[in-house]
Amino acid sequence: MTRDSVPATMRASVLIEQGRLESQKREVPVPLPDEVLIRVASVGVCGSDVHYYRHGRIGDFVVDAPLILGHEASGRIVAVGDRVDPARIGDRVAIEPQRPCRRCRLCKTGRLNLCPSMRFYATPPVDGAFCEYVTISADFAHAVPDSVSDDAAALLEPLSVGVWAVRKARLGSGSSVLVAGAGPIGIMTVVAARAAGATDIVVSDPVASRRAAVMEFGATKAIDPAAGDTPMTVDAFIDCSGAPVAVRSGLRAVAPGGWVVLVGTGAEEMELPLSVIQARELNVTGVFRYVDTWPAATAIAASGEASLDALVTARYGLDQVREALESGQPGGMKSIVEPWR
Amino acid sequence: MTRDSVPATMRASVLIEQGRLESQKREVPVPLPDEVLIRVASVGVCGSDVHYYRHGRIGDFVVDAPLILGHEASGRIVAVGDRVDPARIGDRVAIEPQRPCRRCRLCKTGRLNLCPSMRFYATPPVDGAFCEYVTISADFAHAVPDSVSDDAAALLEPLSVGVWAVRKARLGSGSSVLVAGAGPIGIMTVVAARAAGATDIVVSDPVASRRAAVMEFGATKAIDPAAGDTPMTVDAFIDCSGAPVAVRSGLRAVAPGGWVVLVGTGAEEMELPLSVIQARELNVTGVFRYVDTWPAATAIAASGEASLDALVTARYGLDQVREALESGQPGGMKSIVEPWR
Amino acid sequence: MTRDSVPATMRASVLIEQGRLESQKREVPVPLPDEVLIRVASVGVCGSDVHYYRHGRIGDFVVDAPLILGHEASGRIVAVGDRVDPARIGDRVAIEPQRPCRRCRLCKTGRLNLCPSMRFYATPPVDGAFCEYVTISADFAHAVPDSVSDDAAALLEPLSVGVWAVRKARLGSGSSVLVAGAGPIGIMTVVAARAAGATDIVVSDPVASRRAAVMEFGATKAIDPAAGDTPMTVDAFIDCSGAPVAVRSGLRAVAPGGWVVLVGTGAEEMELPLSVIQARELNVTGVFRYVDTWPAATAIAASGEASLDALVTARYGLDQVREALESGQPGGMKSIVEPWR
Amino acid sequence: MTRDSVPATMRASVLIEQGRLESQKREVPVPLPDEVLIRVASVGVCGSDVHYYRHGRIGDFVVDAPLILGHEASGRIVAVGDRVDPARIGDRVAIEPQRPCRRCRLCKTGRLNLCPSMRFYATPPVDGAFCEYVTISADFAHAVPDSVSDDAAALLEPLSVGVWAVRKARLGSGSSVLVAGAGPIGIMTVVAARAAGATDIVVSDPVASRRAAVMEFGATKAIDPAAGDTPMTVDAFIDCSGAPVAVRSGLRAVAPGGWVVLVGTGAEEMELPLSVIQARELNVTGVFRYVDTWPAATAIAASGEASLDALVTARYGLDQVREALESGQPGGMKSIVEPWR
Repeated sequence: MTRDSVPATMRASVLIEQGRLESQKREVPVPLPDEVLIRVASVGVCGSDVHYYRHGRIGDFVVDAPLILGHEASGRIVAVGDRVDPARIGDRVAIEPQRPCRRCRLCKTGRLNLCPSMRFYATPPVDGAFCEYVTISADFAHAVPDSVSDDAAALLEPLSVGVWAVRKARLGSGSSVLVAGAGPIGIMTVVAARAAGATDIVVSDPVASRRAAVMEFGATKAIDPAAGDTPMTVDAFIDCSGAPVAVRSGLRAVAPGGWVVLVGTGAEEMELPLSVIQARELNVTGVFRYVDTWPAATAIAASGEASLDALVTARYGLDQVREALESGQPGGMKSIVEPWR
Repeated sequence: MTRDSVPATMRASVLIEQGRLESQKREVPVPLPDEVLIRVASVGVCGSDVHYYRHGRIGDFVVDAPLILGHEASGRIVAVGDRVDPARIGDRVAIEPQRPCRRCRLCKTGRLNLCPSMRFYATPPVDGAFCEYVTISADFAHAVPDSVSDDAAALLEPLSVGVWAVRKARLGSGSSVLVAGAGPIGIMTVVAARAAGATDIVVSDPVASRRAAVMEFGATKAIDPAAGDTPMTVDAFIDCSGAPVAVRSGLRAVAPGGWVVLVGTGAEEMELPLSVIQARELNVTGVFRYVDTWPAATAIAASGEASLDALVTARYGLDQVREALESGQPGGMKSIVEPWR
Repeated sequence: MTRDSVPATMRASVLIEQGRLESQKREVPVPLPDEVLIRVASVGVCGSDVHYYRHGRIGDFVVDAPLILGHEASGRIVAVGDRVDPARIGDRVAIEPQRPCRRCRLCKTGRLNLCPSMRFYATPPVDGAFCEYVTISADFAHAVPDSVSDDAAALLEPLSVGVWAVRKARLGSGSSVLVAGAGPIGIMTVVAARAAGATDIVVSDPVASRRAAVMEFGATKAIDPAAGDTPMTVDAFIDCSGAPVAVRSGLRAVAPGGWVVLVGTGAEEMELPLSVIQARELNVTGVFRYVDTWPAATAIAASGEASLDALVTARYGLDQVREALESGQPGGMKSIVEPWR
Repeated sequence: MTRDSVPATMRASVLIEQGRLESQKREVPVPLPDEVLIRVASVGVCGSDVHYYRHGRIGDFVVDAPLILGHEASGRIVAVGDRVDPARIGDRVAIEPQRPCRRCRLCKTGRLNLCPSMRFYATPPVDGAFCEYVTISADFAHAVPDSVSDDAAALLEPLSVGVWAVRKARLGSGSSVLVAGAGPIGIMTVVAARAAGATDIVVSDPVASRRAAVMEFGATKAIDPAAGDTPMTVDAFIDCSGAPVAVRSGLRAVAPGGWVVLVGTGAEEMELPLSVIQARELNVTGVFRYVDTWPAATAIAASGEASLDALVTARYGLDQVREALESGQPGGMKSIVEPWR
């Protein structure tokens, strides 16, 4: 390993159990031969971090041992494993927080996101990035240009979700799309939809401030479902709300042959209008992380068409992770943890 | 119009209202310039015919005027419209029973089956084929070789549903598939799956005689859901049962990234395991008729690999349509109406 | 037919034979039942018009009878056939100048541009739009919003070529592309590439003024092949030059698995580096007109991101078609004929 | 490593330089942690082996150090690396002879065959399988059922080329295809085409005995190009001849929108009819090895529909590799080397 003045220990914010965070001293991890060591610059707070903190689990993933949260991260490479070019030390990078097995049939046919042996940041038992240093495979540390800030580099992770959803929705130049939910993922989806050439981007959200915000990020229309605003017919519908009523309403807005992409989570089961899916031959699918989205997300961020930085509404140090997780996003949009503070 | 000794009137079996059939004398239809007139040879009885007869409606389609049922039909061209080559008179043909508008965006982009102006045989208010003569656009009357019998030519229609389902399921050489339901459509799906190269074709049906029958048509395994037989993991699942329990169970058998194709009808709404669709990025879609399936279906029938004739378990004349509709398929599989008898 | 004060005769500029144009009085065409009659507002001059004028043929298409040229056209609907909604009278429309048969297998499976019975404007023996009035099927007359000028509406035709090329090249958000040739079609391709989300758009052209011009339409880099500028590796290459040297060089710039789309015409035969196509599994295809591109092209024009009007460098009346055809594009880009002048 | 009575040394047939083979004693390779050690049972002789033997190079790949040839291989696992389940010892396997980097963008997006860091058997400087023992990554050693012989297991490699070509040609149920060249790869392509549901499989070859042979493997028609037999119009054309005249003639037989897949090698450059590619929007691509084809190829072999064993026309021991390479295929089809003899 080649390293560059890296300390032996670091600070980490550790989720001991549901609702209990603790600041701990941990050993700085040592990169494996194909990995890099990154000094973390900026980490976005995701709804899943909040969910693990509050409930101690998401579905079958249970926090039954201390866990470091945080998976939307950027930083600078400070050391590399034996098989990695030392010239990468010093690179500013956005972290793609997944470690697929690379050997199963899914990994080898372009669907590594569905790898059954995936080890993903901040998903039990794999630690995340609310700490000073992390490791990741060199090929999942994506260099970013100077024009992309540390915060924006961290937010390439949620933007990747949007990019992946938009690809699955087959949006292209001149497409129309309905997006339900104007939270951070809904906004990222709008940014990705616009970058893919969609020209009618209608967003549905019951909260007025969110409807106002999403118009700043490229939506062409924001509607209030509570007010009975009904969406026009669209080429595709992307749900970022997880609300059954939004899914059912959105699905009915899709033109024959179109795509319905379910990003928002919540219900284990959902009652869907089977006869509509059949009579219009709609295609319904879900989003589970992403494959090969950092190049496109970086290009979008670097293009300057959308300001990811404008999403950031609060910043916290490593000792303030509790506040960051508890602040939620009422009013604000995206909280950032800066572990070096 | 060029015609060849065609009478002025014909016999037709007409559904007057729910449950009431009447044999009527009707004028033989005159083909439009782009149409052909066909003397009907063989018509399969479909579940939808039975449903209209019993319930007077399917969803929004209501029998509120006398209607001729029957849409799985074959025959011989006996006259042609002005813009059709008279050399086609005498051709034995399988009828693709749809009349799309050809002008809407869906028609022009390869999805004519979803045309909002579609006029389809035996769907109110469009008459079907339980009569001696019918017309159809010349390009929807597909010539069949001598090796394909009149019955088999009629059954290219339900086989087309199977071919379309198999295309949507992306089956290919070496694929595995689970098919729920071993009725006529399930069997046709098995035939189409085998023709597309699937090598593991598991069929689930609670009726032992159906499980036995489907093994004759190319299934590699038949399982009894009631006995708790659980399917292996498959590349795709095609539901031909319409039973919610079968759909929910089948969907869980699909490998990550796979397709779920819903052919069977019944429930307007269905509760689906959203978290499975998302975590495996399954693709769920439905089947609504077909596009460009007759060439493939004809090739399958002509290849001799599957005997469509073996599906036929009863034959009726035009005066026996009531019996044909009421016989159902207990024991038998496919009833045929022969209007010329 | 419903019509609105339409005269019985009109002026037309007719190509009598190679190199000889004549202004003639012609009867105003009568729309068929599914057609509309359009008073022509603006017609772009295309390289193929110039080629027919100069050489009297393009490949197998020979001008052996008087022919009206011009196929990039816009106008206003002034009359409609019996099966068209009279409310369309008055609509400003962009003309999609093709009449496919709608009945062949290609038309019914989404490839109407390849219809063997296609009748296309300004392609012998079908007349085009260098005249005061034209007819087209109602569904090929696309309404445009007020924000799109008559000239821009006419130029949706060449933009459609770009949109179609970009679709074939599978460009999306974050893609890189090399475009050879910065003439009108090259520029349209750049506009379409940008609208589809491409972020690296490199254009190669030996003429400095063209390199300067294309940067105004969204190219991110313009290179001079004569100066030995070599393109970087790109996701796709779109040739709009027809020059063998450009094709061969561009093809070598494409990353493994990428697309090569050949738009520019010229050589009947071309020597291609087979071993590169094989070792990189490149996909090489061509562009022949378009399918379903007007909605996207209209959205691009209406978005205001690219100004099609800025392409127009000269305007001519119907009596000046010869000048329009002979002016070529040295210095200028796009000549427009205004038949009403 | 877990191993099962494996000797320390083995025999190998080594290509010292162009035209010079030597039998050598070599150390038995030690599997890396993710690899398996295989006792080789059967190795097919490929045209590329013959080419390296005769010419000492293929394109940029030059034999400038001793090299073991042979890449169509099967055998039995006799030892496993530390991270491989020891239960795999004893498995009969077909070898997929590639070692991609698994880390580049191509590897991670489903195109590992195009990996620029690929290390492939019998391609300088990577040794192949004309020896008693070889290693390969565990996930590239595919278990085969008892119904597939050692020879057939080895021939899953050339069958994989056929499967990959057929996938690229988009063949499905009812497709028509023209295959040029009835050598081993042409035959494998025919087997794969038939398995994918193609019902019209026309093969063109000037040698009568080959035309006769290919009919045994599923071709529906064999034509003699020298006799002026012209192929019908087909959905796709797959060239397995490498002959420019065959490619140019085959390409012209493809229907609009169809695929042309170039498998046969030879010419660095080839003159292609550009105007046909454009006017019909043909898609031309090449085949370079394969991705994820062993499951399908194994299923095809196990289905019993085609007998791969029937392709084998000669068997040689390790001391007879020279004869195997020099025998060529005149009269015969496929020579097998059995290193254990």
